[in-house]
Amino acid sequence: MPYQPRPEHKFSFGLWTVGNPGGDPFGPPVREPRSPVELVHLLAEAGAYGVNFHDNDLVPIDASAQERDRIVSDFKSALDDTGLTVPMATTNLFSDPAFRDGAFTSHDPEVRDYALQKTMRAMDLGAELGADVYVFWGGREGAETDAGQPPTDAIKRYREAINYLAEYNADQGYGLRFALEPKPNEPRGNLFFPTVGAAWDAGKLFHIDLNDQAFGRYDQDFRFGAESPKRAFFLVRFLEEVAGYDGPRHFDAHAHRTSGWADVKSFAEGCMRTYLILKDKAEQMGDDEEIQALLDEINPDDAQSEAAAGYSADGAASLKERSVDRETLGERSKPYERLDQLVTELLLGVR
Amino acid sequence: MPYQPRPEHKFSFGLWTVGNPGGDPFGPPVREPRSPVELVHLLAEAGAYGVNFHDNDLVPIDASAQERDRIVSDFKSALDDTGLTVPMATTNLFSDPAFRDGAFTSHDPEVRDYALQKTMRAMDLGAELGADVYVFWGGREGAETDAGQPPTDAIKRYREAINYLAEYNADQGYGLRFALEPKPNEPRGNLFFPTVGAAWDAGKLFHIDLNDQAFGRYDQDFRFGAESPKRAFFLVRFLEEVAGYDGPRHFDAHAHRTSGWADVKSFAEGCMRTYLILKDKAEQMGDDEEIQALLDEINPDDAQSEAAAGYSADGAASLKERSVDRETLGERSKPYERLDQLVTELLLGVR
Amino acid sequence: MPYQPRPEHKFSFGLWTVGNPGGDPFGPPVREPRSPVELVHLLAEAGAYGVNFHDNDLVPIDASAQERDRIVSDFKSALDDTGLTVPMATTNLFSDPAFRDGAFTSHDPEVRDYALQKTMRAMDLGAELGADVYVFWGGREGAETDAGQPPTDAIKRYREAINYLAEYNADQGYGLRFALEPKPNEPRGNLFFPTVGAAWDAGKLFHIDLNDQAFGRYDQDFRFGAESPKRAFFLVRFLEEVAGYDGPRHFDAHAHRTSGWADVKSFAEGCMRTYLILKDKAEQMGDDEEIQALLDEINPDDAQSEAAAGYSADGAASLKERSVDRETLGERSKPYERLDQLVTELLLGVR
Amino acid sequence: MPYQPRPEHKFSFGLWTVGNPGGDPFGPPVREPRSPVELVHLLAEAGAYGVNFHDNDLVPIDASAQERDRIVSDFKSALDDTGLTVPMATTNLFSDPAFRDGAFTSHDPEVRDYALQKTMRAMDLGAELGADVYVFWGGREGAETDAGQPPTDAIKRYREAINYLAEYNADQGYGLRFALEPKPNEPRGNLFFPTVGAAWDAGKLFHIDLNDQAFGRYDQDFRFGAESPKRAFFLVRFLEEVAGYDGPRHFDAHAHRTSGWADVKSFAEGCMRTYLILKDKAEQMGDDEEIQALLDEINPDDAQSEAAAGYSADGAASLKERSVDRETLGERSKPYERLDQLVTELLLGVR
Repeated sequence: MPYQPRPEHKFSFGLWTVGNPGGDPFGPPVREPRSPVELVHLLAEAGAYGVNFHDNDLVPIDASAQERDRIVSDFKSALDDTGLTVPMATTNLFSDPAFRDGAFTSHDPEVRDYALQKTMRAMDLGAELGADVYVFWGGREGAETDAGQPPTDAIKRYREAINYLAEYNADQGYGLRFALEPKPNEPRGNLFFPTVGAAWDAGKLFHIDLNDQAFGRYDQDFRFGAESPKRAFFLVRFLEEVAGYDGPRHFDAHAHRTSGWADVKSFAEGCMRTYLILKDKAEQMGDDEEIQALLDEINPDDAQSEAAAGYSADGAASLKERSVDRETLGERSKPYERLDQLVTELLLGVR
Repeated sequence: MPYQPRPEHKFSFGLWTVGNPGGDPFGPPVREPRSPVELVHLLAEAGAYGVNFHDNDLVPIDASAQERDRIVSDFKSALDDTGLTVPMATTNLFSDPAFRDGAFTSHDPEVRDYALQKTMRAMDLGAELGADVYVFWGGREGAETDAGQPPTDAIKRYREAINYLAEYNADQGYGLRFALEPKPNEPRGNLFFPTVGAAWDAGKLFHIDLNDQAFGRYDQDFRFGAESPKRAFFLVRFLEEVAGYDGPRHFDAHAHRTSGWADVKSFAEGCMRTYLILKDKAEQMGDDEEIQALLDEINPDDAQSEAAAGYSADGAASLKERSVDRETLGERSKPYERLDQLVTELLLGVR
Repeated sequence: MPYQPRPEHKFSFGLWTVGNPGGDPFGPPVREPRSPVELVHLLAEAGAYGVNFHDNDLVPIDASAQERDRIVSDFKSALDDTGLTVPMATTNLFSDPAFRDGAFTSHDPEVRDYALQKTMRAMDLGAELGADVYVFWGGREGAETDAGQPPTDAIKRYREAINYLAEYNADQGYGLRFALEPKPNEPRGNLFFPTVGAAWDAGKLFHIDLNDQAFGRYDQDFRFGAESPKRAFFLVRFLEEVAGYDGPRHFDAHAHRTSGWADVKSFAEGCMRTYLILKDKAEQMGDDEEIQALLDEINPDDAQSEAAAGYSADGAASLKERSVDRETLGERSKPYERLDQLVTELLLGVR
Repeated sequence: MPYQPRPEHKFSFGLWTVGNPGGDPFGPPVREPRSPVELVHLLAEAGAYGVNFHDNDLVPIDASAQERDRIVSDFKSALDDTGLTVPMATTNLFSDPAFRDGAFTSHDPEVRDYALQKTMRAMDLGAELGADVYVFWGGREGAETDAGQPPTDAIKRYREAINYLAEYNADQGYGLRFALEPKPNEPRGNLFFPTVGAAWDAGKLFHIDLNDQAFGRYDQDFRFGAESPKRAFFLVRFLEEVAGYDGPRHFDAHAHRTSGWADVKSFAEGCMRTYLILKDKAEQMGDDEEIQALLDEINPDDAQSEAAAGYSADGAASLKERSVDRETLGERSKPYERLDQLVTELLLGVR
């Protein structure tokens, strides 16, 4: 029989893949749910070698310790019965309303701590089931508006969390290898880690090319701000107000084919004027009391999460046992629509 | 021999396909040019059945009548020698600088007339070589900025040209079938006919959904104007100032997952406020003398092209023989960079 | 007060917009649901003029007639209290599992009839509440694999349904204007009506350009089948087996910049060979008994839906009252994964 | 005067931006060229602070040493007259036909050496004019077909070149900071360094998610190979034949909403079967003599470039003076169309 899967092929599936019941934003599930044990058997019949999971694919988020132990025990039996392994595990840090504005990068230190706690417990689960690899997908680590937190805060918080968990991994002797899963598409409007290389905060921003572009076409290299003045505004604000950028503002753009030389000069002048207008507006945003009050509401104070305080074995043990009221966390909404509207009005010159 | 091309497969190539010498925006040609006759032989050896062309793929734009006749005669001989046919022909209305701001949709009636003349002559050439199909690709029928002509003018002018040429086709008894080639990608920033169905001017716009979206992701349905305020501005201006739209302004959008109910209300208010702010700015644009002067310069007067005047056999004969100074047409530049910069500054509230 | 919405601005929102509770594929709702009456009041406070809805935004799909009447009565009271109007209504033909493989274009005549019935009833509801416009979004009118039904069947069925409902609209004297909502992005892998102009079945396909392209970049015009051989296969199958296409197979592509002239000839030969190989495979697909059996299972017989039989006032009255077991319809799954895998294996030459 | 550019704003433009004469793939230049000196004056009048260039924006590629010195002298005078600075410089490694198949990553060691030589000389020029930053854009470092060189070779060669030039930079005491310019869009079909983070060869590939996706839509997570079997093939070949990948083959995908549970199993089986079929074909490609001969022709032998041999001050001095016949290099074409067609036929099972 050609093309039969065998263990050495190391084919694996997530519980969330074959277990997906067919719901989407436009309709509810269409398949009766199957339990993790049933899914292990389906995968074994199909010929797979391994099965992966997010913590809550296996153990419901509100399971008691007893329920958790029974579920894990049944799952282990299914693995034994079928010979399937668990090569990888990961944490669901995106479904629960508590993470509606991020997990490791949330403005709320309680949420950041809860994400750490949940991940440590899920690492315990993965290690118990034999996983070698531990995956991090930051499904809610992003934003719909650039008017909110500086992305540099998010990156700092994310780094603190990964450092903390790396120490926990070493401390427990789990030997898990950490894998980052960068995805640009869903489900936030923008994600902080769309590619593995998105790390401006490493002190390596010393030159920048400025132009504009309608997405999904040839390289248009339009006049700075000509297509997306709001994106241009947040970029200028980042360079001027957040990053303290001191390098050249280099315009890698060109005038239209319809332009004559006088219009080429208008193009060059326009690049610079738009930059300066936006710089002025970035300063205005810093001085706008209503906007600043909303920013304070979103990112309330300097309270530090456990990750920022740094890892210690005792601290981690304590955090793992801390009682968290995740429903309350999930009810905390953020006025980003209002904030972004005010910034839009500032940008349009009517504030 | 399996998979050998035969005439009944009707495989055809454009002269511009196999004849492409490998240049692109970042480098010059890398292959020595081959003549149309050589390319016909290459295609025949490869097994093709037909060869298509733009007028200037075969006959250089500045060829004399004698040169034209000699080239066509040589090409016919190559077709006879190889048995290749010419199923389709088309006009190059995009390379010459005369068409830098459009051909059938140019603001300049002389350019529109020249495009008609060039197309009639190219239809003669296609018919002489036996083409059944005549293709229209409007490579320069587009714009880099929505601040220029109303797209409704462009659509009207395009329709006039096609109607004129359809009459010419009937008058000459050519029996050509006209095919529209809609392409969204290149080489203008935006093209007027990106799909076959883009025809708002048919009197069928009686309802509209308003929201916003970062391109290339899931349906985000953001607050109106939240992502692309400049695109939103030109849409509002179109509805209010150009189209005389009288239907509902329907917002098919929703608040962020991070929002609470108060922020949902901010979302709804923001959709409407941004629309009204942009409506106000559209009126302001109509009152801005410097902007209006630039618009007049770009679209100078009411002089009508031959297509607008309508087809007659005598008029077409006269137009075909009219002497056109295309170098002068090609030197006519348009101050779109300046215009678009002024509109951008108006949008940002600093005019 | 500048920028205050007023009735003459005709600002409207769908119940599904402000009522969206914040769920998405990666997480459950985060806001407590609000009733249609509450949402009408939220919109009135925000300053809106109108409110639109899908039938099931207002009346749950399993409501009894009594419940329906009470809900509509409460909604009318809220409209009266607030002065809001209902400019537009539409049908939800995408959420219920019954429509998991399409509504008007489903293979299953019972589903097609149910979609008609549901739409007639929803048109009644829209008309009762004063709507002028009736929108059609075919959220499930699409496919994940081109291996299933011919798209020409789908277009025919869709046209039959629209014709039927247009007669119903006239018969009832509703005066609704029908609006098509074409969307390419979600939620099927591919949608049948991604743009208003996607209508090959109008007998207007007499010329075609063949090449290949990686999406979202400059116009690459690669050798036919070079990037996406499976898409190329389904296109060839459509031309040869479905559409009875008799025009030229015109290759609008070109060789790489790295190619010399011998490789240009390989390019031309490759375009044609790949076409012929795929044509051969399209024939093989027609002869493959297992594949044909799956196609018969998916599209079982020639039983005609009411739309295909044609509109009559009596037939429509009867259909509106027909009892439909939508749960059973929703449980009918389709073996598209198996079908598409077999076609993939055929394409790869291992069947 | 608000919004006037001043030196502390550090606004800079490339000579290629304002100097762009308006040509594109569909038409020739439309503006008379201006000299670098004229462009410096245009920029000064517009208010810019700096001007950047590729070596050949300033000095034609075939200039003699005398011409070079005169041009540079005139340019320096213009800088002195206007007060403009040169913050950044870069090398044109993409226009000349010699680089038609790459520069630092070319298969041809002579081309790789010529790219090193050209870059050292251009660094001399940049340093002479006071540049602080040196940019690397690999405009031809890419491929149209994955059938050619392993990308790991390209990455290795690129790293060698950068290392070599970093030593040259240190050796000369230039103090230039190197900036990589990653761009995914143009002008090769695919570019090797589309983002800063694309570095699989760092030994960090220990887990992989396999599925399929039509680009530019929601995350579809289709069955492996369902959309793009050719891309899937090259990925499998990379994992199995090039990278010696030993981790899990993890399928992060799910069945269609139309599927029932039996079809979910078909989905899981299909993922694995397609992988194994493609693995088999990857082995077949290794055994195909005609394909291997073409690969040898494209990547002829193990001759090492200077970058692979490693930097020494003497070697670099000698390379800088070496005479290079770039016209001959530019005439060397590569049979990628033929190679890719053979691989396509192998994939389709007709070889």
